[in-house]
Formats: sequence, C-alpha cells, structure tokens
Amino acid sequence: MSASRWQVRATRPVAYDILTVADVFDPADPALLAGGRTHGGRRFVVVDANVARHCGARIGTYFAQRDVDARIVVVAGGEQHKSVDMFLELVRELDAFPIHRRDEPIIAIGGGVLTDLVGFVASSYRRGVPHLKVPTTLMGYVDAAVGIKTGINAHGRKNRLGSFEPPLRVLLDRSLLATLPRRHLRNGVCEIVKLAVIKDLELLRLLERHGAHSTAARFQDPAGSVLLDRAIGAMLEELEPNLFEDNLERRVDFGHTFSYGLETRHGERLLHGEAVLLDILVSLAIAAARGLLDDGEVGRVHALVQALDLAPDTALLDGALMWQSLLDRTEHRNGLQRVPMPRGLGGCVFLNDITRRELDAAIAITRDRTGAHEPALQCG
Amino acid sequence: MSASRWQVRATRPVAYDILTVADVFDPADPALLAGGRTHGGRRFVVVDANVARHCGARIGTYFAQRDVDARIVVVAGGEQHKSVDMFLELVRELDAFPIHRRDEPIIAIGGGVLTDLVGFVASSYRRGVPHLKVPTTLMGYVDAAVGIKTGINAHGRKNRLGSFEPPLRVLLDRSLLATLPRRHLRNGVCEIVKLAVIKDLELLRLLERHGAHSTAARFQDPAGSVLLDRAIGAMLEELEPNLFEDNLERRVDFGHTFSYGLETRHGERLLHGEAVLLDILVSLAIAAARGLLDDGEVGRVHALVQALDLAPDTALLDGALMWQSLLDRTEHRNGLQRVPMPRGLGGCVFLNDITRRELDAAIAITRDRTGAHEPALQCG
Ligand SMILES: NC(=O)c1ccc[n+]([C@@H]2O[C@H](COP(=O)([O-])OP(=O)(O)OC[C@H]3O[C@@H](n4cnc5c(N)ncnc54)[C@H](O)[C@@H]3O)[C@@H](O)[C@H]2O)c1
Ligand SMILES: NC(=O)c1ccc[n+]([C@@H]2O[C@H](COP(=O)([O-])OP(=O)(O)OC[C@H]3O[C@@H](n4cnc5c(N)ncnc54)[C@H](O)[C@@H]3O)[C@@H](O)[C@H]2O)c1
Repeated sequence: MSASRWQVRATRPVAYDILTVADVFDPADPALLAGGRTHGGRRFVVVDANVARHCGARIGTYFAQRDVDARIVVVAGGEQHKSVDMFLELVRELDAFPIHRRDEPIIAIGGGVLTDLVGFVASSYRRGVPHLKVPTTLMGYVDAAVGIKTGINAHGRKNRLGSFEPPLRVLLDRSLLATLPRRHLRNGVCEIVKLAVIKDLELLRLLERHGAHSTAARFQDPAGSVLLDRAIGAMLEELEPNLFEDNLERRVDFGHTFSYGLETRHGERLLHGEAVLLDILVSLAIAAARGLLDDGEVGRVHALVQALDLAPDTALLDGALMWQSLLDRTEHRNGLQRVPMPRGLGGCVFLNDITRRELDAAIAITRDRTGAHEPALQCG
Repeated sequence: MSASRWQVRATRPVAYDILTVADVFDPADPALLAGGRTHGGRRFVVVDANVARHCGARIGTYFAQRDVDARIVVVAGGEQHKSVDMFLELVRELDAFPIHRRDEPIIAIGGGVLTDLVGFVASSYRRGVPHLKVPTTLMGYVDAAVGIKTGINAHGRKNRLGSFEPPLRVLLDRSLLATLPRRHLRNGVCEIVKLAVIKDLELLRLLERHGAHSTAARFQDPAGSVLLDRAIGAMLEELEPNLFEDNLERRVDFGHTFSYGLETRHGERLLHGEAVLLDILVSLAIAAARGLLDDGEVGRVHALVQALDLAPDTALLDGALMWQSLLDRTEHRNGLQRVPMPRGLGGCVFLNDITRRELDAAIAITRDRTGAHEPALQCG
C-alpha cells in the first residue's frame, strides 16, 4: 500500500484601520456602523457600565437616529468581569438577538476588559463574526484595543482563553477619556512609559515635557493628542510585523514578565498598568546591574515616574512570586525567558539567563530607591 | 484637529499536511510526535473513550517507548460531550499539565466530536497552541478532521462556539476504523454520498461499485482505500480555496441546510450523517421538481442509498422544523439561503428562493418514495 499525502496551503489576509474621530456618538458620523448598512439593520452593542452611565443616552440616540435596531448590553468593567461566565452570558444574549454573520458587526465600547471579552466572543461565536472596537480607557486607547489579542480569565489565570482576532476597525475618540478616573489614567500612562523606555526615546521626551500636564488634562489638551498618536504609532510598529506573535521576542512584553504573577495574586489591589510599572522598575535595576543602563538613565525614568505621580506600590514586590511569574512566562514563551530589557533608553535586548539572585537584588534596590527622595524632574 | 489613521496589514499563512499512515501507534513511526521532539518532552493527548478501550494500551506504550511524558485524557464521544463543560474541563487539565506553547502540540485522537472539541481548546488555550488530529471515525476521516473548523455546542445549539484553526497535521490511519460500530460507518458514508452527488461523479461510481463491500469490510479492503482517498481529495478541492468560508456558497454544505434543525431536535435519535442524508433526499426532490435532476438521476441516488443500507428514517421529516432550519441557515449564511443543489449528478447550483410549499411537497415525495420498494442497484 502506498501512502497518500495532501498539502493544504492558504493565506489569510488581515486588514484593519485604526482612526481617530472627534465625536464617535454624533449621529452625523456613520463610522460606528462601518462594515454594514449605516441605516437600518441590527447591531449588537456591548457597553462598559461606567461608559453607559456617562454616554448611555447618546449611544441610544445614535442608533435610534440611524434607525438601527440595536441591542445594547451593559457590562461592568474590572478584571473580575473578564470571566467565562460573562463570556457565556454574552453568547446567550447573542442567541436571543440574531445578527447576520458577516455585515452586522458586534460593537464593543469600553476599556481593555470589555474589548478583550467581546473580542473573544466575536472570534468564537459561530466560529467568528466581525467586531469593531471603541476604547474608552487610556489602557484600551494605546494598547488593548489597537491590537488583535482577545482574552478572558479562567480558572484563576489571566487570559487563559483567547484568540488573535483582527477587528473590523478601531475608532479612537479621545473625548471619551474625559470621564476616566485618575487612577485609570495613570494605569494607561504606565503602558506609555513602557513603550518609551523600551522603544522610543522621542516618546520619552514627550512624556517628560507634557506627560504630567496632559494626564492632568485627561489628554484633552493638544499635547495629549500628539502624545497619544506617538504612543499608538510606536505600538503598531511593534505589533504589525509580528501580529500573531510568531516571534516570541517582543519589545512590548517589557514590563510583562514579573507583573503577571503580581497581577494574578493582587488582583484586588493592582491594576494591569500598575503591575507593569513595578515590573519596569525592577527590570531597570536588573538592566543597570548588567551595565545595560547607566545610573543617569535609570534616574531619568524614576524621575519621570515621580513627575507623572504614578506612585508604584513597591511594598508588593515579592521575589518568590515574581520568580514564579518568570517561570510561567518562560513556559508561555516556549521554554526561554525572552525578557525584553532596555539597552540604553529606547533600545532593547532579550535576556534568557536572569537568575533568582539577580531578581532579589533588583527588588531590594528598587525598594530602597522608591523609598528615598527622588530628584526633581528636569523639564525642557 | 486633523484626524489620524493607521492601517494594519498582514497575512497569516496556513500550511498543513494530511497523510495516511499504516499504523500510527507503532513506536517505530515518529509521525504522531510531529511538531516537536520525537523523544522526550511532554504531550497532552486526548483520546476518545471507545478508542481508549481498543487501543489504550498501545497508545500508552507508544509514548512510553519514546520517553514522552504524556498526559492521556480520555473523553467520551457523542454529541452531548461536545459541551462547554467538557471544554472547560480540558482547559483545567491543561493547566495541571504545563506544555510548551509552540513545540508540544496537543494530540487529538477520536471522532468528529473529539477533534472538534479539542481543536477549539487548542485554538483558545493561551490564544492558541498547535494541535494534531488522528480521526478514528469515518466521519472524522473524510470530513471533520481534514478541515480547520472546530466547535462545541452551547445553550442547546450545535457548534455555537468554535473557530477556524488549522491543525499542525492530520494523520489518517485506516486500520482504526476496523472497530467502528456499523451505524457510525454508515454515518460517515452519508457524507461521502453527499460529496459524490454534489461534486464527483466518479466518486459516485466508486460508491456504486464498491461501497457496499467496503462498508461491510469497514474500509479495510483495497477498494476502501481508493474510495477514501477519492473522497478526501474531493473534500479538499472544495475546502482549500475557501478555507475560511469567505465565500458562503459552499458545495460541501449540500445536505447541511434542513439537517441542522433535525439534528438539533432529534439529537438522541439522529447522528449527523443520518440527518444529512435526510436533507439530501429531500433536496433531491426539490431539485427534481425544478428540473435540475431527472427521474433517473434521483432514482440512481435512492438505489445507492438502499444498496449501502443507509436506511433513512424519513418518519422524522417535518416541514415546520426543516423550514425553521432553513431560516436559521439563511441567517448563518448572511441573509441569503445559498442552498447547494445538484444540477445533474456531480454538478451544483445555489438556490436562494426555496419556498415552504416547495419544501413540504418535497418531503411528501420523499416519504412516498422511501416507503415504496426501490429498484435494485445496477452495478458494473
Ligand atoms: N488585548 C490586549 O492586547 C491588551 C493589552 C493591554 C491590556 N489588556 C487588558 O486590558 C484590561 C485592562 O483594561 P482597562 O484598564 O481598560 O480596564 P477596564 O476595562 O476594567 O476599565 C477600567 C475602569 O474604567 C471604567 N471606565 C471605562 N471607560 C470609562 C470612561 N470613559 N469613563 C469612566 N470610566 C470608564 C470601567 O468601568 C472600569 O471600571 C486587562 O484585562 C488587560 O489584560 C489587553
Ligand atoms: N469540523 C468539521 O468540519 C466537521 C465536519 C463534519 C462533522 N463534524 C462534527 O463531527 C461530529 C460527529 O463526529 P462522529 O460521527 O465522529 O462522532 P463521535 O466523535 O461522537 O464518534 C462516534 C462514536 O464512535 C466512537 N468511536 C470513535 N472512534 C471509534 C473507533 N475507532 N472504534 C470504535 N468506536 C469509535 C465514539 O466513542 C462515539 O461513540 C459532530 O459533532 C459534527 O458536528 C465536524
């Protein structure tokens, strides 16, 4: 008997646009209805509860004025709602509101929790229906919503289930950030700091120059717009050539090695960006000890963190927990640590040989440093 | 303020091979360990309960002899196990047995239920880990396992959740079919009949000539091998150019319009292929009434069905249920019926204007016809 063999070969194109809009809920702007009819038809819309509180009426009016039969489902934000239960609940809601499979995209309006959750629903429901994202948190605006990763937490583990699911489109409306609580603004700023340190010195300069003011202005100032555009551009430069993470060495994973365990353990106390910031600070100390950064560079980042009032809770640093997190990420990165580290601010190398001892020393240094008085930020 | 716009563009290549192997559990053959180390390492292996009963010891020996630390999870077949609960249970098992994300593919050994379920686990777990499929039913061998669709049932609906997830590789070992219960053999034969009628006249001839004998021989005969190869080739000709179903007009959906409702309602009585066969017979009557087939052609298929002893349970035909099924499929096919219908045996057109009256008439004709004595099959 001779063996038979068939080869299946294909390519799947990915194409989506990310665009800024001045007022996404203005009924005159059809952007929100991209991907289907802009009058009539149906849309399944999932909205973050706090966004609904602020903009619920305008969202309702938008669809009403365009004669769209919209089922608006309100979901609470916060990590605990990125759950299997909420996922199944949305599936049930979809069953009760039949949408076309191709030209009635699901619309997700909310923070990273909501767009991650709804993205996974969209990628799984009937093996995939299109979806469109409108980030309403800074974290979503510069990170969660612009990429293609979706996810929910399961069995106590973050993003244990998820997919790579390109959205149909991402709409960025900066004005939505105006109602965001300060803590969540700072949370998003941490991700911008991450990008600046590991990738983009010019972004770092912009943060030093305008970050504090823009954060205070909730990014409604002109400099805020420049800052956000720069951050998104930097993010996409990293994401686009490696959209499916075929290359596991990713600069954007800076700050995402030790933070994973911190976030899992201290979910009730630490937001994602806050955990990332702790990771960044410890990573800086590791990099400095290896001579990848000099003292001035480390000091510069610490000064920025202070000027931005990010207030890292270094009491939560914990060698055992963070080491375990590194082991887990190593598994996630297919057996090698692949930890991105700055080599000079804006530069990057990947380390595979971080030791427990090195981590513990870096934690001690970081604790000392943040306990002590920081030098004033040099602007200009 | 000027608007900003970023375009994200990428392509994701799909490449996998489907190959026949003489004895997949022979420790001398490393095929089952493709995609990673062929000695040592770990593998998460999910095996259908009936396959485990017949081959469990050999599967255990295979991994032991190759020094692979294998976690073998046994899962019962049958539609009711293609569930959210079973999905979450497998996720839990995976958490308890950490595998590398890239080079320790999950191995799925079982029927369509198992490979659909495990495929969805693999596509979702940590946003996707590779998997390899070994079909053990005829349905899996010629259909479920060779494509990229995964799925589980949810909230009482078939395949409500799922994905398009290319496997790393598919291994076809015909000898595994030797233990398959006759009813499940016939179940798979229905899908081969489908392909023959809508696509491949030569396959129809092969079925007429060898089908009864090969089915009796559980496809262990030489003609069985030819038949299976032909069926797989025909299937892949349809799947490969439309792997992600961007084109919703699919020949392979023949028999999958009215069957959906029948299968959902009568899950305990009807297997997938049995429901498909009922759909095929009714579709033949619709096609005949429209002049797409002549009486001789319809008679030829009925004769084949009888010769193959497929024994369709036409008492289950139900106009209201099947009409509802068509409406549901219309929604699934984005608002048009897109029902594939034979135009001459081996040919195909798509209909968008089937009426309830037409369906009812076709059901009546089919009932009459299968109640009556069928002419003997002309072989040769
Ligand atoms: N997919 C990705 O690539 C990616 C990247 C980064 C982070 N994430 C995920 O994002 C999640 C964190 O996202 P997040 O920080 O946006 O959390 P979140 O979605 O929980 O939002 C934070 C809080 O802000 C509220 N809120 C949202 N928009 C508001 C507005 N305009 N005005 C007032 N309140 C508002 C929410 O109700 C919530 O209470 C994490 O689960 C993380 O894993 C994903
Ligand atoms: N993904 C796809 O493209 C696709 C295509 C067609 C069908 N399907 C799905 O496949 C499922 C049906 O698959 P199925 O018919 O294989 O059902 P199944 O997986 O339940 O297997 C049928 C029965 O055979 C038993 N069995 C399996 N292998 C055996 C062996 N070698 N010896 C003895 N017993 C064995 C199983 O335990 C089960 O009892 C449906 O859920 C259908 O939706 C999927």
